Amino acid sequence: MPTVQAYAAPDATSPLGPLALERRDPGPHDVAIDIAFCGICHSDLHQVRNEWGGSRYPMVPGHEIVGTVRAVGAHVTRFKPGDRVGVGCMVDSCRTCPSCAKGLEQFCQQGAAFTYNSTEMDRVTPTYGGYSSRIVVTESFVLRIPDRLDLAGAAPLLCAGITTYSPLRHWKVRAGDKVGVVGLGGLGHMAVKLAAALGAEVTLLSSSASKEADARRLGASAFGHTRDEATFKRFGGRFSLILDTVSAPHDYNKYLGMLQVDGAMVLLGVPPEPTPVAAFPLIGGRRSLGGSLIGGIAETQEMLDFCGQHGIVSDIEVLPVQQVNEAYERMLKSDVRYRFVLDMGTL
Amino acid sequence: MPTVQAYAAPDATSPLGPLALERRDPGPHDVAIDIAFCGICHSDLHQVRNEWGGSRYPMVPGHEIVGTVRAVGAHVTRFKPGDRVGVGCMVDSCRTCPSCAKGLEQFCQQGAAFTYNSTEMDRVTPTYGGYSSRIVVTESFVLRIPDRLDLAGAAPLLCAGITTYSPLRHWKVRAGDKVGVVGLGGLGHMAVKLAAALGAEVTLLSSSASKEADARRLGASAFGHTRDEATFKRFGGRFSLILDTVSAPHDYNKYLGMLQVDGAMVLLGVPPEPTPVAAFPLIGGRRSLGGSLIGGIAETQEMLDFCGQHGIVSDIEVLPVQQVNEAYERMLKSDVRYRFVLDMGTL
Repeated sequence: MPTVQAYAAPDATSPLGPLALERRDPGPHDVAIDIAFCGICHSDLHQVRNEWGGSRYPMVPGHEIVGTVRAVGAHVTRFKPGDRVGVGCMVDSCRTCPSCAKGLEQFCQQGAAFTYNSTEMDRVTPTYGGYSSRIVVTESFVLRIPDRLDLAGAAPLLCAGITTYSPLRHWKVRAGDKVGVVGLGGLGHMAVKLAAALGAEVTLLSSSASKEADARRLGASAFGHTRDEATFKRFGGRFSLILDTVSAPHDYNKYLGMLQVDGAMVLLGVPPEPTPVAAFPLIGGRRSLGGSLIGGIAETQEMLDFCGQHGIVSDIEVLPVQQVNEAYERMLKSDVRYRFVLDMGTL
Repeated sequence: MPTVQAYAAPDATSPLGPLALERRDPGPHDVAIDIAFCGICHSDLHQVRNEWGGSRYPMVPGHEIVGTVRAVGAHVTRFKPGDRVGVGCMVDSCRTCPSCAKGLEQFCQQGAAFTYNSTEMDRVTPTYGGYSSRIVVTESFVLRIPDRLDLAGAAPLLCAGITTYSPLRHWKVRAGDKVGVVGLGGLGHMAVKLAAALGAEVTLLSSSASKEADARRLGASAFGHTRDEATFKRFGGRFSLILDTVSAPHDYNKYLGMLQVDGAMVLLGVPPEPTPVAAFPLIGGRRSLGGSLIGGIAETQEMLDFCGQHGIVSDIEVLPVQQVNEAYERMLKSDVRYRFVLDMGTL
């Protein structure tokens, strides 16, 4: 088994540091990938610090992986050495349950094999993520990165991109639809770009008035300052879909009032505590409050191809992997516009 | 203007008593109806006692109205004297806004003219409901009651029936789908009957174990006792749709966990306070929490025709109108299986 370089969290409280990691030899259906870049997702930090419980250590985080194919197994048909590829939040699933059969591997009834802090489908072998020099992934869970896209900028598409694209598609956003995006961070800035590329009229809703210029640059046609109560009246009944990327506590009911009849507000962020929801804003307009989790593999490829057609990548700041601990601290202060990407060439 | 007999609440705290009421002469598009029966909806009590605020007095409640046509205006084409007809929660709407254009008059952007405790679309003339001997309603808001149905038993279809039928249709319940119904009261018992008639496998979820026999008689194939925590595990991930008819406080999150991937829980009852909702049960399964309000006029006729085909009426207890105050007290104790209907022949 080849040994590769990685950056790992030894436990929930120590900084990340170097770790030598064994990856499996590519099997007949496997693709071995030289990782070029890996995005930093806020969930990396949640899991490193065991904020959701059940974390496994040492943990090599990272599920926004891009690189080039180093080698392929004998039965691999879709990839060859040198191809630009990506790996997102999952590296396998049962492939047979009703969710997998519908292309919703993220809801695999056996539980998908997530890219790190999880196990392969044998439920024994730990998975290690993209803060590393190489990874070996079964062909079915490897994505193709369109040639047109900058490789580093494409990395966050594998999580932030699909997390925002999937609900835009599932809730059937079409040209001219009025879409609200709550929060302008890693997820929010991708939501604005993707919704605008789908032809929607996008309104960015933020507690920071200073985000307006960026929101408009990214594709929003309107801006609402959510510390101003007039915003909720001004946009009352406006949106067919609101994507809520904020994980800080906020009053869902005020946002639900900005939905049209049959509109949906979809949670992508997870506030620390349950949020009180009144029945009237839902009943009085047949509105709904939903949630969405990344997206399936086929839909992730569709998203990448869509980004290729529209020239969409993430706005990023590239850092050497040795600065990951500082990056986490800056991320906590929202001091990034809008996604950190680690350069694995520095490992 | 003809004077008709009615039963009215003079204010928020006094019992209902007789009132002589003026109804308009039928205009060219109007239908004058001799009211035979009127169901008692829990919302009658909420509004009589001003529990939602803004009540207008004297109030003649009642929006589950059935009777026979007494006279029609010159331009009325769909009804003639002697026809069996019904009137539900609305007597008019703007008819031109996007909601009305889609047949969702209950979400009319000008605000529908509700059958009582509201105004006609002139926003001046008060509306008075079905606890009365006659009513005059514009043809477009008059429904046809299928000949096969018992007239008294059909009365609650005009509110309880459409309130449960509309979400079953909107969320596309098909034969074999697994539907949960929370609560077995006026709404819940109609939800069980209608979902079963659509071919769904219905599970009744109730805090009263004593409701099981009735639930099965009405069409449920399974029963879950919600005071037993094992119920939530037993039915975990089971339902594509849960209709929640309960207005007492309860933990939505436990119920959301009983939804399949892409499942929806739809609120029909209004708890007194907002209910805390966690993001994880929504995100981890792309589930949604929605609400639904009665149904449009065309869908109400569709529901009545469906009930005609399937021989569905409400389980009722008929009372003379003079017992309405006692009926309210018994309704508060859930001492009715499952809907009171006032006999307007006793006025």
